[in-house]
Amino acid sequence: MPRQITAYSNPLVKETRLLREKRHRREAGRFLAEGLRILTEAREAGRLPHHLFFAGESASHPLVRALVAETEAAGGEAIETTPDILSKLSGKDNPGAVIGVYPEFLTPLAALDRSTSPIWLVAERLRDPGNLGTILRTADAVAAGGLILLDECVDPFSVEAVRASMGALFTVPVARASWDEFHAWLREGPGQLVGLSLDTDADYRSASYAAPTFLLTGNEAQGMPNAMAAACDLLVKIPMLGKADSLNAAVATAVMAYEVLARTR
Amino acid sequence: MPRQITAYSNPLVKETRLLREKRHRREAGRFLAEGLRILTEAREAGRLPHHLFFAGESASHPLVRALVAETEAAGGEAIETTPDILSKLSGKDNPGAVIGVYPEFLTPLAALDRSTSPIWLVAERLRDPGNLGTILRTADAVAAGGLILLDECVDPFSVEAVRASMGALFTVPVARASWDEFHAWLREGPGQLVGLSLDTDADYRSASYAAPTFLLTGNEAQGMPNAMAAACDLLVKIPMLGKADSLNAAVATAVMAYEVLARTR
Repeated sequence: MPRQITAYSNPLVKETRLLREKRHRREAGRFLAEGLRILTEAREAGRLPHHLFFAGESASHPLVRALVAETEAAGGEAIETTPDILSKLSGKDNPGAVIGVYPEFLTPLAALDRSTSPIWLVAERLRDPGNLGTILRTADAVAAGGLILLDECVDPFSVEAVRASMGALFTVPVARASWDEFHAWLREGPGQLVGLSLDTDADYRSASYAAPTFLLTGNEAQGMPNAMAAACDLLVKIPMLGKADSLNAAVATAVMAYEVLARTR
Repeated sequence: MPRQITAYSNPLVKETRLLREKRHRREAGRFLAEGLRILTEAREAGRLPHHLFFAGESASHPLVRALVAETEAAGGEAIETTPDILSKLSGKDNPGAVIGVYPEFLTPLAALDRSTSPIWLVAERLRDPGNLGTILRTADAVAAGGLILLDECVDPFSVEAVRASMGALFTVPVARASWDEFHAWLREGPGQLVGLSLDTDADYRSASYAAPTFLLTGNEAQGMPNAMAAACDLLVKIPMLGKADSLNAAVATAVMAYEVLARTR
């Protein structure tokens, strides 16, 4: 039976709101996800929140009822609250009907099984949470084995990244590693490391891809360091016919991922 | 000779800051662009600001000097100011070295020349300014003839859209039209209208494209209305192998645009 919280001053409301900040997520090991679509995606992937906040007025929605029932059955707590408090928690004027507090989870590099997919995405020093979430969404769409975040990437559990992933954070394995750790792991088995670069003449449509392909996307502003580019088995470029010299990082990753998908299927 | 402004209370600073809001942009017919890279892109495309704010400490940078000189030569005003005021104008803690105030410009539909490019992008009720800017950046990269915004799209002159476009707003013609106006114009000449859809079995890699191809992307959440889908010459889908049922709108547009580019080159 859900308890009700209607006061801003409630300690759980305060504590939950703090999870919008990275420092508090780290301390608590928990993060926020918002909206019926994303929480349902999570539920279907077997991920249930520790705390589920829902608007009283949406309590009869079948997907909300399913979330409440399964959250409680799994030992979590469902909390009926007001749109105002949901808005405070989400930071949006029009919050979704539900907000969940989930334990953070990452997949250790050693637990990734490269035989499960012909495509893996690797991002290096990604700075923008929207790009990270969008890349996760693309990873889900091409059935990538996972997303590997190298060195200092933005937090995949930030509100913006979770939102942009549209739930893919819950369905795509995410690992975090230094370049050295990743490179050592990669060379322990089969895998072609393909880097997106501006400093090559090899067109991405003409290149040969060998599964499993690990697609490496560099930092939004600087691309990847020379040492990483040198360690790639293949550098390819996407043609740029206009005035600009690069695509958005999430867009470039997707154009490449769909090319590799079409060629390895 | 640039004048100096160092007071927050300066009327021009206040007025410029208001351009972050759509209502004030509409009234003034002007918008903001930020950063040396974007303003230089604009300058190279022949677009100079009415007002150019620059940090005194960056006055010796060759690109800043070029902007100042050309802005003044074109009758605009260059204003030396402080990092604090630049920060206030940009809304960012770390503003770029320059901010420009430009007159809004759109290209009338009737002025678009469809013979200039085999690819045109068309977006319907696009809601997210980051997506709009990212689509403009892709439009530049594939040398699209332009971007046509249908019905109620987000403002292409919003700070977020201009930023995400990385300057492509200044290099890619943008037109705004209702669906009826666009459809009537389209049918006056050659042009294949290709809609991205989930309700088709036609894979985007197997379809036949005929230049000029007009790629239509629907609203982020709802896709395009049935009437628009019915008016398309071709509906294609991008395969979705995971749990999610759609890609980010800017990503989907780019995957399609690069496919059409590769096939029509």
